[in-house]
Amino acid sequence: MAAFTDSARLSLNQITTQRWSVREAVDGCVRAGIPYIGLWREKVAEAGLRESARMVRDAGLRVSSLCRGGWFCAATAAERQARLDDNRRAIEEAAILGTDVLVLVCGPAADRDIGAARAYIEEAIARLLPYAAEHGVKLGIEPLHPMYAAERSVIVTLAEANQIARRFAHSHVGVVIDAYHVWWDPEIYAQIAAARGRILGFHVCDWLVPTPDMLMGRGMMGDGVIELRRLRQAVDAAGYTGPVEVEIFNRAIWDTPGDEVLALMIRRYLECV
Amino acid sequence: MAAFTDSARLSLNQITTQRWSVREAVDGCVRAGIPYIGLWREKVAEAGLRESARMVRDAGLRVSSLCRGGWFCAATAAERQARLDDNRRAIEEAAILGTDVLVLVCGPAADRDIGAARAYIEEAIARLLPYAAEHGVKLGIEPLHPMYAAERSVIVTLAEANQIARRFAHSHVGVVIDAYHVWWDPEIYAQIAAARGRILGFHVCDWLVPTPDMLMGRGMMGDGVIELRRLRQAVDAAGYTGPVEVEIFNRAIWDTPGDEVLALMIRRYLECV
Repeated sequence: MAAFTDSARLSLNQITTQRWSVREAVDGCVRAGIPYIGLWREKVAEAGLRESARMVRDAGLRVSSLCRGGWFCAATAAERQARLDDNRRAIEEAAILGTDVLVLVCGPAADRDIGAARAYIEEAIARLLPYAAEHGVKLGIEPLHPMYAAERSVIVTLAEANQIARRFAHSHVGVVIDAYHVWWDPEIYAQIAAARGRILGFHVCDWLVPTPDMLMGRGMMGDGVIELRRLRQAVDAAGYTGPVEVEIFNRAIWDTPGDEVLALMIRRYLECV
Repeated sequence: MAAFTDSARLSLNQITTQRWSVREAVDGCVRAGIPYIGLWREKVAEAGLRESARMVRDAGLRVSSLCRGGWFCAATAAERQARLDDNRRAIEEAAILGTDVLVLVCGPAADRDIGAARAYIEEAIARLLPYAAEHGVKLGIEPLHPMYAAERSVIVTLAEANQIARRFAHSHVGVVIDAYHVWWDPEIYAQIAAARGRILGFHVCDWLVPTPDMLMGRGMMGDGVIELRRLRQAVDAAGYTGPVEVEIFNRAIWDTPGDEVLALMIRRYLECV
Protein backbone atom coordinates (compact mmCIF):
# COMPACT_ATOMS: atom_id res chain seq x y z
CA MET A 1 0.00 0.00 0.00
CA ALA A 2 1.50 3.30 -1.11
CA ALA A 3 2.63 5.88 1.42
CA PHE A 4 2.08 9.58 0.93
CA THR A 5 5.09 11.24 -0.67
CA ASP A 6 4.34 14.73 0.54
CA SER A 7 2.28 16.67 3.06
CA ALA A 8 -0.23 18.00 0.56
CA ARG A 9 -3.20 16.52 2.43
CA LEU A 10 -1.89 16.96 5.97
CA SER A 11 -3.81 19.05 8.48
CA LEU A 12 -2.83 20.06 11.99
CA ASN A 13 -5.85 19.76 14.23
CA GLN A 14 -5.17 22.52 16.65
CA ILE A 15 -5.75 20.39 19.74
CA THR A 16 -2.53 18.51 18.94
CA THR A 17 -0.59 21.65 19.85
CA GLN A 18 -2.92 22.56 22.65
CA ARG A 19 -0.66 25.22 24.18
CA TRP A 20 -0.44 27.15 20.94
CA SER A 21 -2.74 30.04 20.11
CA VAL A 22 -4.25 30.32 16.64
CA ARG A 23 -1.40 32.70 15.74
CA GLU A 24 1.26 30.25 16.92
CA ALA A 25 -0.42 27.28 15.24
CA VAL A 26 -0.77 29.14 11.95
CA ASP A 27 2.88 30.20 12.04
CA GLY A 28 3.92 26.68 13.01
CA CYS A 29 2.07 25.19 10.05
CA VAL A 30 3.68 27.69 7.69
CA ARG A 31 7.17 26.89 9.03
CA ALA A 32 6.52 23.16 8.72
CA GLY A 33 4.86 23.33 5.30
CA ILE A 34 1.55 21.95 6.54
CA PRO A 35 -1.18 23.24 4.23
CA TYR A 36 -4.30 22.69 6.37
CA ILE A 37 -5.35 23.52 9.90
CA GLY A 38 -8.34 22.26 11.89
CA LEU A 39 -9.47 24.96 14.29
CA TRP A 40 -11.16 24.81 17.69
CA ARG A 41 -13.85 27.26 18.63
CA GLU A 42 -12.36 28.06 22.04
CA LYS A 43 -9.01 28.96 20.49
CA VAL A 44 -10.68 31.00 17.78
CA ALA A 45 -12.70 32.88 20.41
CA GLU A 46 -9.49 33.73 22.29
CA ALA A 47 -7.82 35.05 19.13
CA GLY A 48 -10.95 36.71 17.76
CA LEU A 49 -13.06 35.22 15.00
CA ARG A 50 -12.32 37.65 12.17
CA GLU A 51 -8.72 38.01 13.24
CA SER A 52 -8.35 34.20 13.14
CA ALA A 53 -9.92 34.07 9.69
CA ARG A 54 -7.52 36.75 8.49
CA MET A 55 -4.44 35.05 9.97
CA VAL A 56 -5.27 31.77 8.30
CA ARG A 57 -6.07 33.40 4.97
CA ASP A 58 -3.00 35.62 4.98
CA ALA A 59 -0.82 32.62 5.74
CA GLY A 60 -2.24 30.77 2.75
CA LEU A 61 -3.59 27.93 4.90
CA ARG A 62 -6.87 26.19 4.37
CA VAL A 63 -9.17 25.31 7.27
CA SER A 64 -10.00 21.61 7.15
CA SER A 65 -12.72 21.77 9.78
CA LEU A 66 -14.04 23.56 12.83
CA CYS A 67 -14.32 21.64 16.10
CA ARG A 68 -16.91 21.29 17.51
CA GLY A 69 -20.62 21.59 17.18
CA GLY A 70 -23.05 19.12 18.64
CA TRP A 71 -23.59 18.49 22.37
CA PHE A 72 -27.28 18.70 21.55
CA CYS A 73 -28.86 16.75 24.39
CA ALA A 74 -30.02 18.53 27.51
CA ALA A 75 -32.54 18.00 30.28
CA THR A 76 -34.69 21.05 29.55
CA ALA A 77 -36.23 22.56 26.43
CA ALA A 78 -34.57 25.89 27.20
CA GLU A 79 -31.15 24.31 27.40
CA ARG A 80 -31.74 22.32 24.22
CA GLN A 81 -32.67 25.57 22.48
CA ALA A 82 -29.54 27.26 23.83
CA ARG A 83 -27.45 24.47 22.37
CA LEU A 84 -29.09 24.73 18.98
CA ASP A 85 -28.42 28.47 19.07
CA ASP A 86 -24.80 27.78 19.92
CA ASN A 87 -24.56 25.41 16.97
CA ARG A 88 -25.93 28.14 14.70
CA ARG A 89 -23.12 30.37 15.93
CA ALA A 90 -20.67 27.57 15.19
CA ILE A 91 -22.02 27.37 11.65
CA GLU A 92 -21.53 31.12 11.23
CA GLU A 93 -17.99 30.83 12.58
CA ALA A 94 -17.16 27.98 10.22
CA ALA A 95 -18.37 30.04 7.27
CA ILE A 96 -16.33 33.07 8.35
CA LEU A 97 -13.24 30.92 8.91
CA GLY A 98 -13.61 29.58 5.40
CA THR A 99 -14.20 25.92 6.15
CA ASP A 100 -17.16 23.93 4.92
CA VAL A 101 -17.01 21.30 7.69
CA LEU A 102 -18.37 21.61 11.21
CA VAL A 103 -17.55 18.52 13.26
CA LEU A 104 -20.45 17.36 15.42
CA VAL A 105 -19.95 15.58 18.73
CA CYS A 106 -23.30 13.95 19.21
CA GLY A 107 -24.10 13.59 22.85
CA PRO A 108 -24.11 12.58 25.57
CA ALA A 109 -27.61 11.68 26.77
CA ALA A 110 -29.03 13.96 29.42
CA ASP A 111 -30.38 10.94 31.29
CA ARG A 112 -29.95 7.18 31.03
CA ASP A 113 -32.03 6.91 27.89
CA ILE A 114 -29.44 6.48 25.15
CA GLY A 115 -32.12 5.56 22.60
CA ALA A 116 -34.01 8.80 23.12
CA ALA A 117 -30.76 10.76 22.91
CA ARG A 118 -29.96 9.12 19.57
CA ALA A 119 -33.36 10.09 18.21
CA TYR A 120 -32.90 13.64 19.44
CA ILE A 121 -29.53 13.96 17.68
CA GLU A 122 -31.31 13.41 14.42
CA GLU A 123 -33.98 15.94 15.29
CA ALA A 124 -31.32 18.52 16.18
CA ILE A 125 -29.45 17.95 12.92
CA ALA A 126 -32.71 18.37 11.01
CA ARG A 127 -33.27 21.70 12.72
CA LEU A 128 -29.77 22.96 11.99
CA LEU A 129 -29.51 21.74 8.45
CA PRO A 130 -31.24 24.59 6.58
CA TYR A 131 -29.05 27.12 8.40
CA ALA A 132 -25.93 25.10 7.69
CA ALA A 133 -26.78 24.75 4.00
CA GLU A 134 -27.48 28.48 3.71
CA HIS A 135 -24.00 29.12 5.04
CA GLY A 136 -22.35 26.50 2.87
CA VAL A 137 -21.31 24.51 5.93
CA LYS A 138 -21.59 20.73 6.05
CA LEU A 139 -22.45 18.95 9.30
CA GLY A 140 -19.99 16.13 9.94
CA ILE A 141 -21.31 13.43 12.26
CA GLU A 142 -18.28 11.99 14.00
CA PRO A 143 -18.82 8.70 15.77
CA LEU A 144 -16.74 8.63 18.92
CA HIS A 145 -15.28 5.57 20.59
CA PRO A 146 -17.87 3.63 22.61
CA MET A 147 -15.92 4.39 25.78
CA TYR A 148 -17.25 7.94 25.42
CA ALA A 149 -20.88 6.84 25.07
CA ALA A 150 -21.86 8.03 28.53
CA GLU A 151 -19.97 11.31 28.61
CA ARG A 152 -19.46 12.60 25.08
CA SER A 153 -21.32 10.98 22.23
CA VAL A 154 -24.19 8.56 21.85
CA ILE A 155 -23.14 8.03 18.23
CA VAL A 156 -20.41 5.44 18.57
CA THR A 157 -20.27 3.51 15.30
CA LEU A 158 -19.76 4.58 11.72
CA ALA A 159 -22.74 2.38 10.83
CA GLU A 160 -24.98 4.60 12.89
CA ALA A 161 -23.47 7.83 11.55
CA ASN A 162 -23.89 6.48 8.03
CA GLN A 163 -27.51 5.57 8.69
CA ILE A 164 -28.30 9.05 9.91
CA ALA A 165 -26.49 10.70 7.00
CA ARG A 166 -28.24 8.37 4.56
CA ARG A 167 -31.64 9.22 5.96
CA PHE A 168 -30.97 12.93 5.42
CA ALA A 169 -29.65 12.27 1.91
CA HIS A 170 -28.52 15.88 1.84
CA SER A 171 -25.29 17.30 0.47
CA HIS A 172 -24.70 19.11 3.77
CA VAL A 173 -24.80 16.10 6.11
CA GLY A 174 -21.94 13.63 6.16
CA VAL A 175 -19.59 11.75 8.44
CA VAL A 176 -16.17 12.39 9.91
CA ILE A 177 -14.06 9.28 10.39
CA ASP A 178 -11.46 9.34 13.15
CA ALA A 179 -9.25 6.24 13.15
CA TYR A 180 -8.95 6.35 16.94
CA HIS A 181 -12.69 6.12 17.41
CA VAL A 182 -13.48 3.39 14.89
CA TRP A 183 -10.45 1.11 14.41
CA TRP A 184 -11.84 -1.62 16.70
CA ASP A 185 -15.05 -2.06 14.69
CA PRO A 186 -15.36 -5.40 12.87
CA GLU A 187 -17.61 -3.62 10.35
CA ILE A 188 -15.30 -0.68 9.75
CA TYR A 189 -14.12 -1.44 6.22
CA ALA A 190 -17.64 -2.20 5.04
CA GLN A 191 -18.88 0.98 6.68
CA ILE A 192 -16.10 3.11 5.19
CA ALA A 193 -17.09 1.83 1.76
CA ALA A 194 -20.73 2.55 2.60
CA ALA A 195 -19.81 6.14 3.51
CA ARG A 196 -18.79 6.88 -0.08
CA GLY A 197 -19.80 10.38 -1.09
CA ARG A 198 -20.46 11.43 2.49
CA ILE A 199 -16.98 11.46 4.04
CA LEU A 200 -16.28 14.99 5.24
CA GLY A 201 -13.08 14.36 7.12
CA PHE A 202 -10.51 11.79 8.18
CA HIS A 203 -8.65 12.12 11.48
CA VAL A 204 -5.67 10.13 12.67
CA CYS A 205 -3.68 9.44 15.80
CA ASP A 206 -2.90 6.09 17.44
CA TRP A 207 -4.18 3.74 20.15
CA LEU A 208 -1.47 3.25 22.74
CA VAL A 209 -0.95 -0.03 24.58
CA PRO A 210 -1.45 0.30 27.44
CA THR A 211 -3.76 3.29 27.13
CA PRO A 212 -2.64 5.69 29.84
CA ASP A 213 -5.91 7.62 30.05
CA MET A 214 -9.36 7.45 28.48
CA LEU A 215 -9.30 11.05 27.32
CA MET A 216 -5.67 12.12 27.24
CA GLY A 217 -4.15 8.80 26.22
CA ARG A 218 -4.06 9.11 22.45
CA GLY A 219 -0.76 8.57 20.73
CA MET A 220 1.27 9.84 17.80
CA MET A 221 0.76 7.79 14.65
CA GLY A 222 3.06 4.78 14.73
CA ASP A 223 3.20 4.58 18.52
CA GLY A 224 0.16 2.33 18.80
CA VAL A 225 -1.75 -0.52 17.19
CA ILE A 226 -4.09 1.08 14.66
CA GLU A 227 -3.68 -0.02 11.04
CA LEU A 228 -3.62 3.60 9.93
CA ARG A 229 -2.49 3.10 6.35
CA ARG A 230 -5.09 0.45 5.73
CA LEU A 231 -7.80 2.71 7.12
CA ARG A 232 -6.58 5.73 5.18
CA GLN A 233 -6.47 3.80 1.96
CA ALA A 234 -9.97 2.47 2.59
CA VAL A 235 -11.14 6.05 3.08
CA ASP A 236 -9.39 7.08 -0.13
CA ALA A 237 -10.85 4.09 -1.96
CA ALA A 238 -14.27 5.33 -0.86
CA GLY A 239 -13.59 8.48 -2.84
CA TYR A 240 -12.27 10.80 -0.14
CA THR A 241 -9.55 13.12 -1.36
CA GLY A 242 -9.63 15.73 1.39
CA PRO A 243 -7.32 16.62 4.25
CA VAL A 244 -6.05 14.16 6.85
CA GLU A 245 -6.20 15.81 10.26
CA VAL A 246 -3.86 14.83 13.05
CA GLU A 247 -5.80 15.20 16.29
CA ILE A 248 -4.00 14.07 19.44
CA PHE A 249 -5.13 14.48 23.03
CA ASN A 250 -2.00 13.69 24.99
CA ARG A 251 -0.44 15.68 27.81
CA ALA A 252 3.14 14.67 26.95
CA ILE A 253 2.67 15.79 23.36
CA TRP A 254 1.04 19.00 24.54
CA ASP A 255 4.09 19.63 26.74
CA THR A 256 6.49 19.15 23.81
CA PRO A 257 7.53 22.26 21.85
CA GLY A 258 5.09 22.65 18.97
CA ASP A 259 7.70 22.71 16.20
CA GLU A 260 9.04 19.36 17.41
CA VAL A 261 5.52 17.92 17.45
CA LEU A 262 4.93 19.10 13.88
CA ALA A 263 8.21 17.67 12.64
CA LEU A 264 7.46 14.29 14.20
CA MET A 265 3.89 14.44 12.96
CA ILE A 266 5.01 14.95 9.37
CA ARG A 267 7.51 12.10 9.60
CA ARG A 268 4.96 9.71 11.04
CA TYR A 269 2.30 10.82 8.59
CA LEU A 270 4.58 9.85 5.73
CA GLU A 271 5.68 6.61 7.41
CA CYS A 272 2.41 5.35 8.84
CA VAL A 273 -0.67 6.96 7.29
CA MET B 1 -40.94 -3.75 33.57
CA ALA B 2 -41.08 -6.18 36.47
CA ALA B 3 -38.25 -6.35 38.99
CA PHE B 4 -37.01 -9.61 40.40
CA THR B 5 -38.72 -10.46 43.67
CA ASP B 6 -36.03 -12.77 44.97
CA SER B 7 -32.41 -13.75 44.45
CA ALA B 8 -33.17 -17.09 42.80
CA ARG B 9 -31.15 -16.20 39.67
CA LEU B 10 -28.41 -14.17 41.34
CA SER B 11 -24.77 -15.22 41.03
CA LEU B 12 -21.71 -13.76 42.70
CA ASN B 13 -18.91 -13.60 40.19
CA GLN B 14 -15.96 -14.15 42.42
CA ILE B 15 -14.00 -11.17 41.12
CA THR B 16 -16.54 -8.89 42.81
CA THR B 17 -15.15 -9.98 46.16
CA GLN B 18 -11.62 -10.17 44.92
CA ARG B 19 -10.02 -10.47 48.36
CA TRP B 20 -12.06 -13.52 49.25
CA SER B 21 -10.83 -17.05 48.71
CA VAL B 22 -13.16 -19.67 47.26
CA ARG B 23 -13.94 -20.78 50.83
CA GLU B 24 -14.82 -17.25 51.93
CA ALA B 25 -16.87 -16.56 48.81
CA VAL B 26 -18.81 -19.80 49.18
CA ASP B 27 -19.54 -19.08 52.82
CA GLY B 28 -20.49 -15.50 51.97
CA CYS B 29 -22.97 -16.67 49.35
CA VAL B 30 -24.52 -19.12 51.80
CA ARG B 31 -24.88 -16.41 54.48
CA ALA B 32 -26.43 -14.02 51.95
CA GLY B 33 -28.71 -16.58 50.32
CA ILE B 34 -27.08 -16.25 46.90
CA PRO B 35 -27.61 -19.52 45.04
CA TYR B 36 -24.94 -19.25 42.31
CA ILE B 37 -21.26 -18.48 42.16
CA GLY B 38 -19.06 -17.70 39.16
CA LEU B 39 -15.55 -18.97 39.82
CA TRP B 40 -12.16 -17.77 38.62
CA ARG B 41 -9.45 -20.22 37.69
CA GLU B 42 -6.74 -18.45 39.69
CA LYS B 43 -8.83 -18.59 42.86
CA VAL B 44 -9.74 -22.20 42.25
CA ALA B 45 -6.07 -23.05 41.75
CA GLU B 46 -5.23 -21.44 45.09
CA ALA B 47 -7.94 -23.38 46.90
CA GLY B 48 -7.38 -26.62 44.99
CA LEU B 49 -9.62 -27.79 42.16
CA ARG B 50 -11.30 -30.77 43.77
CA GLU B 51 -11.47 -29.03 47.13
CA SER B 52 -13.20 -26.07 45.47
CA ALA B 53 -15.65 -28.37 43.74
CA ARG B 54 -16.42 -30.06 47.06
CA MET B 55 -16.88 -26.77 48.91
CA VAL B 56 -19.33 -25.48 46.35
CA ARG B 57 -21.25 -28.77 46.22
CA ASP B 58 -21.38 -29.20 49.98
CA ALA B 59 -22.68 -25.65 50.36
CA GLY B 60 -25.49 -26.37 47.92
CA LEU B 61 -24.33 -23.67 45.49
CA ARG B 62 -24.37 -23.97 41.74
CA VAL B 63 -21.48 -22.73 39.61
CA SER B 64 -22.79 -20.34 36.97
CA SER B 65 -19.55 -20.19 34.98
CA LEU B 66 -15.81 -20.51 35.09
CA CYS B 67 -13.70 -17.46 34.15
CA ARG B 68 -11.75 -17.51 31.89
CA GLY B 69 -10.66 -19.40 28.87
CA GLY B 70 -9.60 -17.79 25.64
CA TRP B 71 -6.50 -15.59 25.21
CA PHE B 72 -5.86 -17.65 22.11
CA CYS B 73 -3.69 -15.35 20.03
CA ALA B 74 0.09 -15.55 20.26
CA ALA B 75 3.06 -14.74 18.10
CA THR B 76 4.41 -18.29 17.78
CA ALA B 77 2.88 -21.66 16.96
CA ALA B 78 4.31 -23.10 20.18
CA GLU B 79 2.67 -20.43 22.28
CA ARG B 80 -0.63 -20.81 20.45
CA GLN B 81 -0.47 -24.53 21.18
CA ALA B 82 0.29 -23.84 24.84
CA ARG B 83 -2.78 -21.66 25.04
CA LEU B 84 -5.00 -24.29 23.47
CA ASP B 85 -3.66 -26.78 25.99
CA ASP B 86 -4.44 -24.36 28.77
CA ASN B 87 -7.98 -24.01 27.47
CA ARG B 88 -8.34 -27.78 27.52
CA ARG B 89 -7.36 -27.69 31.18
CA ALA B 90 -9.94 -24.97 31.75
CA ILE B 91 -12.57 -27.20 30.15
CA GLU B 92 -11.60 -30.05 32.49
CA GLU B 93 -11.75 -27.71 35.45
CA ALA B 94 -15.19 -26.44 34.47
CA ALA B 95 -16.46 -30.01 34.25
CA ILE B 96 -15.03 -30.91 37.65
CA LEU B 97 -16.46 -27.75 39.20
CA GLY B 98 -19.87 -28.70 37.87
CA THR B 99 -20.48 -25.79 35.53
CA ASP B 100 -21.34 -26.14 31.88
CA VAL B 101 -20.07 -22.67 30.91
CA LEU B 102 -16.50 -21.62 30.23
CA VAL B 103 -16.27 -17.90 29.52
CA LEU B 104 -13.91 -17.07 26.65
CA VAL B 105 -12.00 -13.81 26.47
CA CYS B 106 -11.11 -13.69 22.81
CA GLY B 107 -7.89 -11.84 22.29
CA PRO B 108 -5.97 -9.66 22.01
CA ALA B 109 -4.11 -9.79 18.70
CA ALA B 110 -0.45 -10.72 18.92
CA ASP B 111 0.37 -8.00 16.38
CA ARG B 112 -1.53 -5.15 14.76
CA ASP B 113 -3.60 -7.41 12.58
CA ILE B 114 -6.98 -7.46 14.28
CA GLY B 115 -8.61 -9.16 11.29
CA ALA B 116 -6.23 -12.10 11.43
CA ALA B 117 -6.73 -12.36 15.18
CA ARG B 118 -10.47 -12.55 14.69
CA ALA B 119 -10.09 -15.34 12.18
CA TYR B 120 -7.78 -17.21 14.52
CA ILE B 121 -10.29 -16.99 17.38
CA GLU B 122 -12.69 -19.00 15.27
CA GLU B 123 -10.02 -21.53 14.41
CA ALA B 124 -9.13 -21.93 18.09
CA ILE B 125 -12.75 -22.45 19.09
CA ALA B 126 -13.11 -25.06 16.34
CA ARG B 127 -10.12 -26.91 17.76
CA LEU B 128 -11.42 -26.82 21.32
CA LEU B 129 -15.02 -27.64 20.57
CA PRO B 130 -14.85 -31.45 20.41
CA TYR B 131 -13.05 -31.55 23.74
CA ALA B 132 -15.53 -29.13 25.29
CA ALA B 133 -18.52 -31.11 24.03
CA GLU B 134 -17.03 -34.36 25.35
CA HIS B 135 -16.81 -32.75 28.77
CA GLY B 136 -20.28 -31.22 28.61
CA VAL B 137 -18.83 -27.72 28.74
CA LYS B 138 -20.14 -24.92 26.56
CA LEU B 139 -17.81 -22.25 25.21
CA GLY B 140 -19.22 -18.79 25.90
CA ILE B 141 -17.88 -16.10 23.58
CA GLU B 142 -18.02 -12.88 25.58
CA PRO B 143 -17.66 -9.70 23.56
CA LEU B 144 -15.69 -7.18 25.61
CA HIS B 145 -16.02 -3.42 25.42
CA PRO B 146 -14.19 -1.94 22.39
CA MET B 147 -11.85 -0.08 24.74
CA TYR B 148 -10.29 -3.50 25.41
CA ALA B 149 -9.79 -4.31 21.72
CA ALA B 150 -6.03 -3.81 21.85
CA GLU B 151 -5.29 -5.48 25.15
CA ARG B 152 -7.94 -8.08 25.92
CA SER B 153 -10.39 -9.08 23.24
CA VAL B 154 -10.71 -8.61 19.51
CA ILE B 155 -14.37 -9.66 19.79
CA VAL B 156 -16.05 -6.43 20.80
CA THR B 157 -19.64 -6.62 19.61
CA LEU B 158 -22.44 -9.06 20.26
CA ALA B 159 -23.08 -9.06 16.51
CA GLU B 160 -19.66 -10.58 15.95
CA ALA B 161 -20.02 -13.11 18.79
CA ASN B 162 -23.42 -14.08 17.39
CA GLN B 163 -22.00 -14.52 13.91
CA ILE B 164 -19.29 -16.82 15.17
CA ALA B 165 -21.71 -18.84 17.29
CA ARG B 166 -24.13 -19.05 14.38
CA ARG B 167 -21.45 -20.35 12.05
CA PHE B 168 -20.65 -23.15 14.49
CA ALA B 169 -24.35 -23.93 14.94
CA HIS B 170 -23.33 -26.24 17.77
CA SER B 171 -25.01 -26.72 21.13
CA HIS B 172 -21.68 -26.13 22.86
CA VAL B 173 -20.87 -22.69 21.44
CA GLY B 174 -22.78 -19.64 22.58
CA VAL B 175 -22.41 -16.10 23.83
CA VAL B 176 -22.06 -14.45 27.20
CA ILE B 177 -23.61 -11.01 27.43
CA ASP B 178 -22.12 -8.57 29.92
CA ALA B 179 -24.10 -5.35 30.19
CA TYR B 180 -20.94 -3.34 30.86
CA HIS B 181 -19.38 -4.42 27.60
CA VAL B 182 -22.35 -4.00 25.29
CA TRP B 183 -24.71 -1.31 26.63
CA TRP B 184 -23.38 1.38 24.25
CA ASP B 185 -24.18 -0.63 21.11
CA PRO B 186 -26.97 0.82 18.93
CA GLU B 187 -27.65 -2.73 17.72
CA ILE B 188 -27.74 -4.32 21.14
CA TYR B 189 -31.45 -5.10 21.42
CA ALA B 190 -31.58 -6.57 17.93
CA GLN B 191 -28.48 -8.62 18.68
CA ILE B 192 -29.82 -9.88 22.01
CA ALA B 193 -32.93 -11.08 20.18
CA ALA B 194 -30.68 -12.65 17.55
CA ALA B 195 -28.78 -14.52 20.27
CA ARG B 196 -31.88 -16.54 21.20
CA GLY B 197 -30.99 -20.10 22.06
CA ARG B 198 -27.30 -19.30 22.36
CA ILE B 199 -27.15 -17.11 25.47
CA LEU B 200 -24.94 -18.88 28.01
CA GLY B 201 -24.69 -16.14 30.59
CA PHE B 202 -25.68 -12.62 31.54
CA HIS B 203 -23.37 -10.41 33.59
CA VAL B 204 -24.16 -7.09 35.20
CA CYS B 205 -22.46 -4.13 36.83
CA ASP B 206 -22.68 -0.44 35.92
CA TRP B 207 -20.89 2.20 33.85
CA LEU B 208 -19.80 5.02 36.15
CA VAL B 209 -19.74 8.67 35.06
CA PRO B 210 -17.00 9.69 35.08
CA THR B 211 -15.29 6.35 34.65
CA PRO B 212 -12.38 6.38 37.09
CA ASP B 213 -10.32 3.72 35.34
CA MET B 214 -10.55 1.65 32.16
CA LEU B 215 -10.11 -1.65 33.97
CA MET B 216 -10.98 -1.02 37.60
CA GLY B 217 -13.70 1.55 37.08
CA ARG B 218 -16.80 -0.60 36.96
CA GLY B 219 -19.62 0.26 39.32
CA MET B 220 -22.28 -1.38 41.43
CA MET B 221 -25.62 -1.69 39.65
CA GLY B 222 -27.54 1.56 40.04
CA ASP B 223 -24.45 3.73 40.42
CA GLY B 224 -24.09 4.33 36.68
CA VAL B 225 -25.95 4.89 33.45
CA ILE B 226 -26.67 1.42 32.04
CA GLU B 227 -30.32 0.53 31.48
CA LEU B 228 -29.83 -2.75 33.31
CA ARG B 229 -33.43 -3.77 33.68
CA ARG B 230 -34.16 -3.14 30.04
CA LEU B 231 -31.17 -5.22 29.03
CA ARG B 232 -32.01 -8.01 31.46
CA GLN B 233 -35.56 -8.17 30.25
CA ALA B 234 -34.37 -8.25 26.64
CA VAL B 235 -32.12 -11.18 27.54
CA ASP B 236 -35.03 -12.90 29.27
CA ALA B 237 -37.29 -12.17 26.31
CA ALA B 238 -34.70 -13.93 24.15
CA GLY B 239 -35.34 -17.05 26.18
CA TYR B 240 -32.56 -16.88 28.75
CA THR B 241 -33.60 -18.16 32.16
CA GLY B 242 -30.18 -18.73 33.71
CA PRO B 243 -28.16 -16.99 36.39
CA VAL B 244 -27.37 -13.29 36.43
CA GLU B 245 -23.76 -12.83 37.47
CA VAL B 246 -22.58 -9.69 39.22
CA GLU B 247 -19.01 -9.08 38.06
CA ILE B 248 -17.39 -5.87 39.29
CA PHE B 249 -13.80 -4.77 38.88
CA ASN B 250 -13.50 -1.89 41.33
CA ARG B 251 -10.84 -1.30 43.95
CA ALA B 252 -13.20 0.47 46.38
CA ILE B 253 -15.65 -2.44 46.23
CA TRP B 254 -12.80 -4.90 46.63
CA ASP B 255 -11.69 -3.00 49.73
CA THR B 256 -15.19 -3.18 51.26
CA PRO B 257 -15.95 -6.13 53.58
CA GLY B 258 -17.43 -8.89 51.44
CA ASP B 259 -20.65 -9.32 53.43
CA GLU B 260 -21.42 -5.63 52.92
CA VAL B 261 -20.77 -5.95 49.20
CA LEU B 262 -23.12 -8.93 48.97
CA ALA B 263 -25.88 -7.17 50.91
CA LEU B 264 -25.66 -4.10 48.66
CA MET B 265 -25.43 -6.30 45.58
CA ILE B 266 -28.66 -8.10 46.46
CA ARG B 267 -30.48 -4.82 47.13
CA ARG B 268 -29.34 -3.30 43.86
CA TYR B 269 -30.07 -6.48 41.96
CA LEU B 270 -33.67 -6.32 43.12
CA GLU B 271 -33.92 -2.57 42.52
CA CYS B 272 -32.08 -2.19 39.22
CA VAL B 273 -31.74 -5.46 37.31
